[in-house]
Amino acid sequence: MSGWKTGDLLDLQDLTREDIESILETAKSFKEVSTRDVKKVPALRGKTVVMLFSEPSTRTRVSFELAAKRLSADTLNVSVSASSLSKGESILDMAKNIEAMNVDMIVVRHRSSGVPKVLADALTPGIINAGDGCRAHPTQALLDMFTIKEKLGKIEGLKVAIIGDILHSRVARSNIEGLTKLGAKVTLCGPSTLIPVGIEVQGVKVTHCLEDVLKDSDVLMFLRLQKERQQEKYLPSVREYVRKFGLNKEKLKWAKKDVVIMHPGPVNRGIELSADVADGENSVILEQVTNGVAVRMAVLYLLLGKKEK
Amino acid sequence: MSGWKTGDLLDLQDLTREDIESILETAKSFKEVSTRDVKKVPALRGKTVVMLFSEPSTRTRVSFELAAKRLSADTLNVSVSASSLSKGESILDMAKNIEAMNVDMIVVRHRSSGVPKVLADALTPGIINAGDGCRAHPTQALLDMFTIKEKLGKIEGLKVAIIGDILHSRVARSNIEGLTKLGAKVTLCGPSTLIPVGIEVQGVKVTHCLEDVLKDSDVLMFLRLQKERQQEKYLPSVREYVRKFGLNKEKLKWAKKDVVIMHPGPVNRGIELSADVADGENSVILEQVTNGVAVRMAVLYLLLGKKEK
Amino acid sequence: MSGWKTGDLLDLQDLTREDIESILETAKSFKEVSTRDVKKVPALRGKTVVMLFSEPSTRTRVSFELAAKRLSADTLNVSVSASSLSKGESILDMAKNIEAMNVDMIVVRHRSSGVPKVLADALTPGIINAGDGCRAHPTQALLDMFTIKEKLGKIEGLKVAIIGDILHSRVARSNIEGLTKLGAKVTLCGPSTLIPVGIEVQGVKVTHCLEDVLKDSDVLMFLRLQKERQQEKYLPSVREYVRKFGLNKEKLKWAKKDVVIMHPGPVNRGIELSADVADGENSVILEQVTNGVAVRMAVLYLLLGKKEK
Repeated sequence: MSGWKTGDLLDLQDLTREDIESILETAKSFKEVSTRDVKKVPALRGKTVVMLFSEPSTRTRVSFELAAKRLSADTLNVSVSASSLSKGESILDMAKNIEAMNVDMIVVRHRSSGVPKVLADALTPGIINAGDGCRAHPTQALLDMFTIKEKLGKIEGLKVAIIGDILHSRVARSNIEGLTKLGAKVTLCGPSTLIPVGIEVQGVKVTHCLEDVLKDSDVLMFLRLQKERQQEKYLPSVREYVRKFGLNKEKLKWAKKDVVIMHPGPVNRGIELSADVADGENSVILEQVTNGVAVRMAVLYLLLGKKEK
Repeated sequence: MSGWKTGDLLDLQDLTREDIESILETAKSFKEVSTRDVKKVPALRGKTVVMLFSEPSTRTRVSFELAAKRLSADTLNVSVSASSLSKGESILDMAKNIEAMNVDMIVVRHRSSGVPKVLADALTPGIINAGDGCRAHPTQALLDMFTIKEKLGKIEGLKVAIIGDILHSRVARSNIEGLTKLGAKVTLCGPSTLIPVGIEVQGVKVTHCLEDVLKDSDVLMFLRLQKERQQEKYLPSVREYVRKFGLNKEKLKWAKKDVVIMHPGPVNRGIELSADVADGENSVILEQVTNGVAVRMAVLYLLLGKKEK
Repeated sequence: MSGWKTGDLLDLQDLTREDIESILETAKSFKEVSTRDVKKVPALRGKTVVMLFSEPSTRTRVSFELAAKRLSADTLNVSVSASSLSKGESILDMAKNIEAMNVDMIVVRHRSSGVPKVLADALTPGIINAGDGCRAHPTQALLDMFTIKEKLGKIEGLKVAIIGDILHSRVARSNIEGLTKLGAKVTLCGPSTLIPVGIEVQGVKVTHCLEDVLKDSDVLMFLRLQKERQQEKYLPSVREYVRKFGLNKEKLKWAKKDVVIMHPGPVNRGIELSADVADGENSVILEQVTNGVAVRMAVLYLLLGKKEK
């Protein structure tokens, strides 16, 4: 068995509302650690945390590595492409080897959906999903929820719009899971080609018109438009996408004065957001990054506590 | 001068039987450290261990890095291809620079045989050979001997078969050296093209028939068939190799019931071993990986003790 | 504002003579740390130092990483090419993300001149320039000055020749800045195509003849001839360059008996220096490397002290 109860973080669907709230509460106290002069607590001294990444991702890898180091854990980077996988070894074989070295936690990012679940089912160390294919990115959703709660005091009842390529976005998928669980009213907004058919059954609304969500949303969460998607058949043109779904100073006037603008980064400036909006006073993009370290410290701390039982 | 007595581990031929037994004994106590809640002892605090690797090797690099970290040493990775070597610098120049930074130990892997010896002759820090060309891989042989002793209580008098491409295998070469020194009866088994002519002078037997060793061996140590070898003239075909030298459930019936099956990894499943045998109850492949960390901790600890004198 | 006074090290032109002397003095005490059995002091425990490198440079990266580790800081490597920059993110965006994770110091190397200044102007953490384009490499010049002072007891009044490709050399530029500030008499020597026109206004002499500087220089500092330069129009041929500006045993006879020969490394043996001269008794090339760690420890220590104010 795998899942939050047994020491893994694979997908927010494995967590109850109480689990999520407990993570956000724990993260609050860890956020303070990173502002200290000595940014370090001994909580995970003598534990080993391995970052097993098959996709390049500086910000997520660095965020986890810092989180682990600030808890005094030993960290180790394994970049899957540079590794024995080139000898035809499967990622499961590789992970079994890492397990055999008595590591405590494996943070895994992989381009194929489901890889973290496969590892969690097979292995004793805790597994944290740091993003798998189009499936889930639970710590990103947790840090997004932490940020919303910090800025607006609550999540219950808030109107949150998620804007862009919902279809291919693990960030969207995990946020939908988490935000609806915590009582937010989620509306998805994007071209019809980029919104999964029938997704309303998950308790969200759908619109293809940015104006619909601009006026009364408390939070506007923009998704990155992947370069590869721009060259596929999903969009008539990037220019058209920007006109319809991009946010600039002009359109921002229609929104609530204190609307919270989020983006998982890196922003394509001039596409999802104009530069002035990305850097503007409603944007919390860099606060999301700061909170990422705190949330990941909380997740590592809580999971390794479970594993010790 | 270089060699075990002066603080380097280059080749098991530099070690006496007593040296090897002392490493295995030390490793036993370090193995326990990796099972603790706090997997760390302060033995090498303030020492610097550099991993200087010219070949990609996740498992060996990670094993050494973990070993050093669990002894509280500072570790540093230098990947030779990504480095100044691309500017035409020789590995000796690079290593002299690392030496000048007052590091204590350099763990080196290199595709050319003899590079660790060149470094050890020229440099003050200890040098550990983590695999050089077709020559030696002493810590692999030490962990193999540790595993055999742990499973079977002794090495003296045991019948050990090493099966596969002996000719190109540094793992085989180091195991032959160590196992015969500790009194095991070693038989090499493989295609005649892949067994060095005249190797019997080293005190081993040779056979080209797997059946010969299956029946009465206590240990069957399979070697990885390198992809590049499969495309060369050494083998009629991979299929033929599997038929003659691969082990599956069917052939395993001919072996002793408690035969120990080893492989340095990563296994080509379906070639050297069928998947069910690789994961079966006679296989100690993952225990070898676990023991690798303990043996490397012992080697680092003992060598750095020598260097301090 | 950015610069030494506010916690950044971008260019030696921001430092007074007293600033430089204070760094060299601090480095002296840190040099001793690296010769201890336990090479570690707790000065920067709980601080985070990120190495953000866009050019491969093992020796500089390793030197900074060791310096930070010996001060007990947490270190983190971000290789810019392997990172999100491939997703079209700018280095400033990336650095802002790193800043948001509450790091204390970013050590940056970049092929474009001015990048460290851009980061320092925009960011709160300290920025150390570890080499930007053809502009500056202040810690290299500091370690060179440390080495000269250690060997010859002073810098004031010494005759220092810098030989080679001055035009493209950040090492030369920073050394000219620092050495003239400390009262050395600097002469530049190289082909006229590789010496900036009008550089005499910076208080240096220029010659195109190695013999001119050989006879009475106290220090001969050779620069690396970059491979790419060898293939450009700057030189008639490498052979001609060696004949005119390379140093070998024969030419060395013309120099002072105790002349100090320096090179930032890696040496093109047979080009700037013959192998016997590079390894000869006048060469302090490896001492420069040793001193690099001490100087970088001093810079990290002094800058992080400033930042804490």
